[in-house]
Amino acid sequence: MGINLTNFLSSKSKSKRMMEFQDLDHIDGVSISTICANLYNNSRDDLVMFYFRDGANHASVYTQSKIISENIKWNLNQKVKKIFSLIVNTRNANCFTGKQGYKSLEKIAELASQKLTEKQKEDDDLPKKIKLKEILFGCTGTIGEIFPEEKISNKLNELVEKIKYTQNKYIWMKAALGIMTTDTQPKMAMEKCFIGNSEIKIFGVAKGSGMIQPNMATTLGYIFTDADIPNDILKKLLKKNIYNTFNAISCDSDTSTNDMVSIFSTGKSKHPKIETINDDKIKDFDIALNKVLLNLAKRVVADGEGASKFITIDTQNCKNEDDAKKIGFSIANSPLVKTAIAGEDPNWGRIIMAIGKADIPINYEKLSIKFGDISVVHNGKLNSNYNEDEVSEYMKSDSIEINVDICSGSKCFKVYTMDLTKKYIEINADYRS
Amino acid sequence: MGINLTNFLSSKSKSKRMMEFQDLDHIDGVSISTICANLYNNSRDDLVMFYFRDGANHASVYTQSKIISENIKWNLNQKVKKIFSLIVNTRNANCFTGKQGYKSLEKIAELASQKLTEKQKEDDDLPKKIKLKEILFGCTGTIGEIFPEEKISNKLNELVEKIKYTQNKYIWMKAALGIMTTDTQPKMAMEKCFIGNSEIKIFGVAKGSGMIQPNMATTLGYIFTDADIPNDILKKLLKKNIYNTFNAISCDSDTSTNDMVSIFSTGKSKHPKIETINDDKIKDFDIALNKVLLNLAKRVVADGEGASKFITIDTQNCKNEDDAKKIGFSIANSPLVKTAIAGEDPNWGRIIMAIGKADIPINYEKLSIKFGDISVVHNGKLNSNYNEDEVSEYMKSDSIEINVDICSGSKCFKVYTMDLTKKYIEINADYRS
Repeated sequence: MGINLTNFLSSKSKSKRMMEFQDLDHIDGVSISTICANLYNNSRDDLVMFYFRDGANHASVYTQSKIISENIKWNLNQKVKKIFSLIVNTRNANCFTGKQGYKSLEKIAELASQKLTEKQKEDDDLPKKIKLKEILFGCTGTIGEIFPEEKISNKLNELVEKIKYTQNKYIWMKAALGIMTTDTQPKMAMEKCFIGNSEIKIFGVAKGSGMIQPNMATTLGYIFTDADIPNDILKKLLKKNIYNTFNAISCDSDTSTNDMVSIFSTGKSKHPKIETINDDKIKDFDIALNKVLLNLAKRVVADGEGASKFITIDTQNCKNEDDAKKIGFSIANSPLVKTAIAGEDPNWGRIIMAIGKADIPINYEKLSIKFGDISVVHNGKLNSNYNEDEVSEYMKSDSIEINVDICSGSKCFKVYTMDLTKKYIEINADYRS
Repeated sequence: MGINLTNFLSSKSKSKRMMEFQDLDHIDGVSISTICANLYNNSRDDLVMFYFRDGANHASVYTQSKIISENIKWNLNQKVKKIFSLIVNTRNANCFTGKQGYKSLEKIAELASQKLTEKQKEDDDLPKKIKLKEILFGCTGTIGEIFPEEKISNKLNELVEKIKYTQNKYIWMKAALGIMTTDTQPKMAMEKCFIGNSEIKIFGVAKGSGMIQPNMATTLGYIFTDADIPNDILKKLLKKNIYNTFNAISCDSDTSTNDMVSIFSTGKSKHPKIETINDDKIKDFDIALNKVLLNLAKRVVADGEGASKFITIDTQNCKNEDDAKKIGFSIANSPLVKTAIAGEDPNWGRIIMAIGKADIPINYEKLSIKFGDISVVHNGKLNSNYNEDEVSEYMKSDSIEINVDICSGSKCFKVYTMDLTKKYIEINADYRS
């Protein structure tokens, strides 16, 4: 089901790789509306509303930064069973905006609840009054600028009016485009699976593309499903699957104040009830959710700022998963490894350096390193057949895999990252101008 | 005494800044010899010998990387009271070279001990037989390439023959040049101080300039003094003063396998005996040693790969020094902060981000940030007088100071770093070609 990720990521052409989307279609209980609120002072859509007509169970994971944005504070304060809307703006992170930022969200939530309640009255037999606390916010963009409350409020009426109850691939694409900042491509993924005999959809959209080393959550990622899963099980499923997907990527080792991944479950599919996370009926859903999250996470890396290469670091046979993760991120975040790969230089000495600085005990006489299928270091020695020309040829690929075998246990972890190029400097030296 | 570091680092012109050296002259008991062993296949000097005719007390701190080079293993194995020679080569790190790398050092040490013993016989009334274990090695360069034993051995005779017993500024400059890799400038520093009534010299040379976030030690740094200080006190003094000098710098967050800072004390100055580190007589020396180390450490940063700006991050009023250090390095190592500074963009939001990800509890209503003397954030709010033009003007300077006041205690720590430029990518994408 869905696109083949291996093919997708090994695809020679980056532009091709980035444009291979699955067609997301209608998902029961989710409506989408997008608009240009002129936050970027150009004509792009920059404000997106997800509307759950009958509410949705939900769970979120947020940034572990000690400084968090006002919208994350808002979201953390809302303890409700069902969410009716998620409003996402770009260009402004609503971070370090203090009371102004928080109060703005309150006012926007007031207006949105009023407009959505009116919409309920128009469209529904049993209209519900939408409460402020049933609305969540996603914000992304520059930190520390005054939050553009008025620009957003001015467009809310129109945003609600544009809501349609049937979604198609174009509106999903518009949503994925509408939440972008410096991303060059929208990010969407989908899977289908079964719970009992009911076919379930899991759709997701995400944005990157700088300030990315998630810590328990990441940059914005939103998952939607028509499954009917209670909040507590959604939370467990999300936490479990974030570990080796969004929390396994790094573009530049920086962690955002606004990281947020949420899942919304509209319950429109009438499958047998799920009561615990250990329920066998949920296994297929669990795997499919992981695929959607991993697909989105990889797209975030592949479109990382200035990326010319997608890099997978597979650290194998460690004492425990955390050691493997620490070594993986030490390699992934090393500017010297990342620049060598940008220069298509198989400088494996820098990988040795990065393994060494990870602070995990290493018996280097057992250490092996491969670039793709090519053995470079075997049992602590340069492979006697090592042929730098062959590896240099491999380094020209668009997608590089580095295998590190620590040989001290049986636990593995894969980290995904990108190279560090002049383009990254260009984008980030001039971000605000 | 020496150059004024404040002036040196605030100097507008980088080239001027880098060329302002103190003239190191003769220091009793230290001899220097340099030669081209053709390690770079060009005519530069790449092999340096420091010779202590009557031996020197010594102490070293080494990299905390879990993978260390063969010369560091060699040095750790030599437990002797006095060192007679330090041999430093560049171009090859002698790391991940296994038995070949270690045995090469053994052979070179054999040859060196033989040649230096012959020299003792020629020149000294009471000639001493120099032992293998009385020789230390410093290596720097590419990791994982076969160690060029033969090229070095072939030049040892000539290297010993070139030894002169009187040193001047030219030979110190040649030594500082001889240990460079991608450094664009040699790094030297000196201070004079008193122990009792005796004037003491402390000279130092160092090299950078990539793979630099020292951990208990750093890239190569060698300190020489004519003071007479026992090994155990030298060790304590070095450890204490490394903390806020070499261990307070980061160029690119990468830690070398070859980091090494050593101090050699020839004992030629006949001052009163020093028996403990708490001896009042040593206070002046302690301060002077810190100045030499800080001066060298700052030069390493100022000449960091691709650096266009020298950055000081002064984190103030934390609960403890370690918190201040953690926040300082989180800012110093953030690619987004470093690229913003390269772009002369006062993007203080990224400093907020970097403070947040340091994982230290922050009350952000008390947080203040200054760029130089300009208050940007005061008590968690953008300063009402904030004038971006004024700060943008400040960002054009060659030396940027960022003050972060956490307001949760009384401990401070200064971290020194540089910006991240396209030049860094250029240097490191093509390092080996």
